[in-house]
Amino acid sequence: MPAPVDFLKYIDDNADRFIDRLGAAVAIPSVSGEAVHRPDVVAMSAWLDQQLQDLGVTTKIVDLGEQTDEKLHLPPAILGRIGDDPKKKTVLVYGHYDVQPAEESDGWSSDPFQLVIEDDGRLVGRGSTDDKGPIMGWLNVLEAHQALGRELPVNLRFCFEGMEESGSEGLDDLIKSEAAKGEDGWFDGVDCVCISDNYWLNTRTPCLTYGLRGLVYFSVNVTGPTHDLHSGMFGRMVHEPMTDLIALMGTLVAPDGTILISGIDELVPPLTPEESEIYENIDYSVQDVDEAAGAPIALSDDKVTLLMGRMRMPSLSLHGIEGAFSGSGSKTVIPASVTGKFSIRIVNPQTPELIELLVKAHLEKEFAKLQTKNVLTIKNIGDGMPWVTDPKDPNYEAASRATEAVYGRLPDLTREGGSIPVTLTFAESLGVNVLLLPMGRGDDGAHSTNEKLDRSNFIGGSKLLGTYLYELGPKE
Amino acid sequence: MPAPVDFLKYIDDNADRFIDRLGAAVAIPSVSGEAVHRPDVVAMSAWLDQQLQDLGVTTKIVDLGEQTDEKLHLPPAILGRIGDDPKKKTVLVYGHYDVQPAEESDGWSSDPFQLVIEDDGRLVGRGSTDDKGPIMGWLNVLEAHQALGRELPVNLRFCFEGMEESGSEGLDDLIKSEAAKGEDGWFDGVDCVCISDNYWLNTRTPCLTYGLRGLVYFSVNVTGPTHDLHSGMFGRMVHEPMTDLIALMGTLVAPDGTILISGIDELVPPLTPEESEIYENIDYSVQDVDEAAGAPIALSDDKVTLLMGRMRMPSLSLHGIEGAFSGSGSKTVIPASVTGKFSIRIVNPQTPELIELLVKAHLEKEFAKLQTKNVLTIKNIGDGMPWVTDPKDPNYEAASRATEAVYGRLPDLTREGGSIPVTLTFAESLGVNVLLLPMGRGDDGAHSTNEKLDRSNFIGGSKLLGTYLYELGPKE
Repeated sequence: MPAPVDFLKYIDDNADRFIDRLGAAVAIPSVSGEAVHRPDVVAMSAWLDQQLQDLGVTTKIVDLGEQTDEKLHLPPAILGRIGDDPKKKTVLVYGHYDVQPAEESDGWSSDPFQLVIEDDGRLVGRGSTDDKGPIMGWLNVLEAHQALGRELPVNLRFCFEGMEESGSEGLDDLIKSEAAKGEDGWFDGVDCVCISDNYWLNTRTPCLTYGLRGLVYFSVNVTGPTHDLHSGMFGRMVHEPMTDLIALMGTLVAPDGTILISGIDELVPPLTPEESEIYENIDYSVQDVDEAAGAPIALSDDKVTLLMGRMRMPSLSLHGIEGAFSGSGSKTVIPASVTGKFSIRIVNPQTPELIELLVKAHLEKEFAKLQTKNVLTIKNIGDGMPWVTDPKDPNYEAASRATEAVYGRLPDLTREGGSIPVTLTFAESLGVNVLLLPMGRGDDGAHSTNEKLDRSNFIGGSKLLGTYLYELGPKE
Repeated sequence: MPAPVDFLKYIDDNADRFIDRLGAAVAIPSVSGEAVHRPDVVAMSAWLDQQLQDLGVTTKIVDLGEQTDEKLHLPPAILGRIGDDPKKKTVLVYGHYDVQPAEESDGWSSDPFQLVIEDDGRLVGRGSTDDKGPIMGWLNVLEAHQALGRELPVNLRFCFEGMEESGSEGLDDLIKSEAAKGEDGWFDGVDCVCISDNYWLNTRTPCLTYGLRGLVYFSVNVTGPTHDLHSGMFGRMVHEPMTDLIALMGTLVAPDGTILISGIDELVPPLTPEESEIYENIDYSVQDVDEAAGAPIALSDDKVTLLMGRMRMPSLSLHGIEGAFSGSGSKTVIPASVTGKFSIRIVNPQTPELIELLVKAHLEKEFAKLQTKNVLTIKNIGDGMPWVTDPKDPNYEAASRATEAVYGRLPDLTREGGSIPVTLTFAESLGVNVLLLPMGRGDDGAHSTNEKLDRSNFIGGSKLLGTYLYELGPKE
């Protein structure tokens, strides 16, 4: 059912105070990737826990133990629950209270940990959009209901972590163990999950995200001599590892993005008319790509081709070479051992295991063709599964109706080119639908300098999260 | 004429004292590439100047001015002369008194600036072979003649510098201006030049070097986006600079060393039977290459093919990429601007200008094939001409007879794959024959840790330098 008018009005009437609360959250520099800030991450967890308790949420601080390879204790996860009405749906909400590193000297126009409200409505500060803004959005919804004396339309469960920007260490185990406890755990009776931790595709149109690409990251080492060689003395006398590696790296991807490794592009399912329609309906243009990249380098003049390149096709990027000369100026050495780095973004039904088989077979075949005496070693140094769900699931339909109610238009249905690994963990552990419901815009600059969240997205997004709960709830 | 017996005996009888003098030279850490050692380089010039004067040489310390881009004064060049007999030939000797950096912590087995005499005769210390040993060799010759009351068989002119390991700044101008002064300059009446600053091809056989490859160093930049891009968000949406650059770099050289740029290999003159015989006669084997490289990676099983690859053919080495990910681990960024570095060792009649034309034409043609929207920039960032002379010149014939007299065998005739730029400056400025007459062996490790000169090479080499002067002198 639609959200009640007094809820929407409460959000509008208290906007400035909500922004103050966001400012208080931004002011705690909860940078999970820097040891010096670990106490701030812990302080942020205590601050958030207190907010939740004040708003009627029962919480549990979960110690996740020691961090691997660091002499640091992990920041805790916070589990929370409010509402136990068996007649209502139960929604699990995820968010993270840690942020990326930020120094004013990186190029920020102001102290990154002091939220600045600009005249055009931009709320500038580290964590404003990633992911403190969305967490504050949930608090705003809770506060409105508490203040208005209204019952929530659903039961809520919370899972907040403080290590998302640093690999979410410990979280997967916690989610799996809580899920395994069933009715005795903190995720009892969960019907669906909502994660607000990504962005609109552009700056104009709200979206719901129903897919993510996976990733396999490869390192390809070619070794020959035991030490670097003088190119004057050894040039055209020996097999040079760089020559072999560059030849191999040149066999992987065409300049137009086509993956040249047999079997990878072929594993992409055919496009259905329904899916095609989704891309055609998305508010996007070639200009959006060029603007985001800063130069007119889009691979195609066709919007749908571009969107499919990011959302439904695998992609292969060459990242660099370890062990070769990488400085400025000139150095005439023949490097003894060089390691190429590349990654492949993968889509269902591709799995890291399948991709690894195809990549290794391809590289070994191409290496044999070189007839070199150097030695090849291929490693998968990190991977994650792709994820896609049904955008017609009731969870998505509710978010779609909520978007139309708040923003006056249906959301675009998007898939992300990158990964949000926790999505898969929730989907697989709980066996329920997971919705990615972004609050911010495509130009928020989540990991960059001058990260921002627009005031209209913060306030509209708070209304959206609440309205989504009503649309999920009873039909009245 | 042959060297007199008493000269050869003096060298043998005073070997230990000569080694002490080498030790005194090594003890002055005249590292030209490190500002902190600049006073030591100057101290070394004063020490050498005093030695020359004590041995009857008239010298001039030449101030070379300020070093470009450094707040440092250049170490001086030392010009010297002994003998003015118009009936004798005049030989110009070049050497450098500066050395490469060295720290015991780099892996030296002892203090690099303390000459260690090992049981097997290895004289270990920085500069022992490059180039203090050869300079001491000339001093030994002078001392023997002074002590024996013998006249030198030729007039000698000296040119010693202290910046060879750091680009020989200031030297070219000095040589050209002294050469231009003719009879009024320090290089008056010079008939030929002798440079002892390279090495035997192996550890067994003396050699004379009559050619050097030149070099052209290229940087190839591909730029697209204005900033690094997230490979999840932009992979298969934009033209990636790394994809284009790797494709370009893959068109340059085959794994067997063949240069794929049209015109470069084709510019190599056909092999004559005389030249072919030189390679066949050289004491060298595939095993020598594999041992020097530390692994069995020689491009061919044929000795002559290998030698020709280094000595008469151009070679192309890919050195690395600036701007791409070069660290360990994984980073999923699409780099915005990447610059490939490669160099081509060139041979006569190739010139840097010709090679640059061929390389640019090739890269532009290949880049056009990619149909990318990224931007290509090609730069020549450093070059030098190749050099080859006639190994039948009387200067070489004299050195050949001297080698046979001292070592009991004819020298190999070699060309070096690398460059010694001063060779060309002397040849062009003075218009006389230049001889490269090495003292040390191929395994001396000139720029490495535990640089050494074998005692037998130091003593044999001192005899060789003196005997060479006699073989150049009157036939008796």
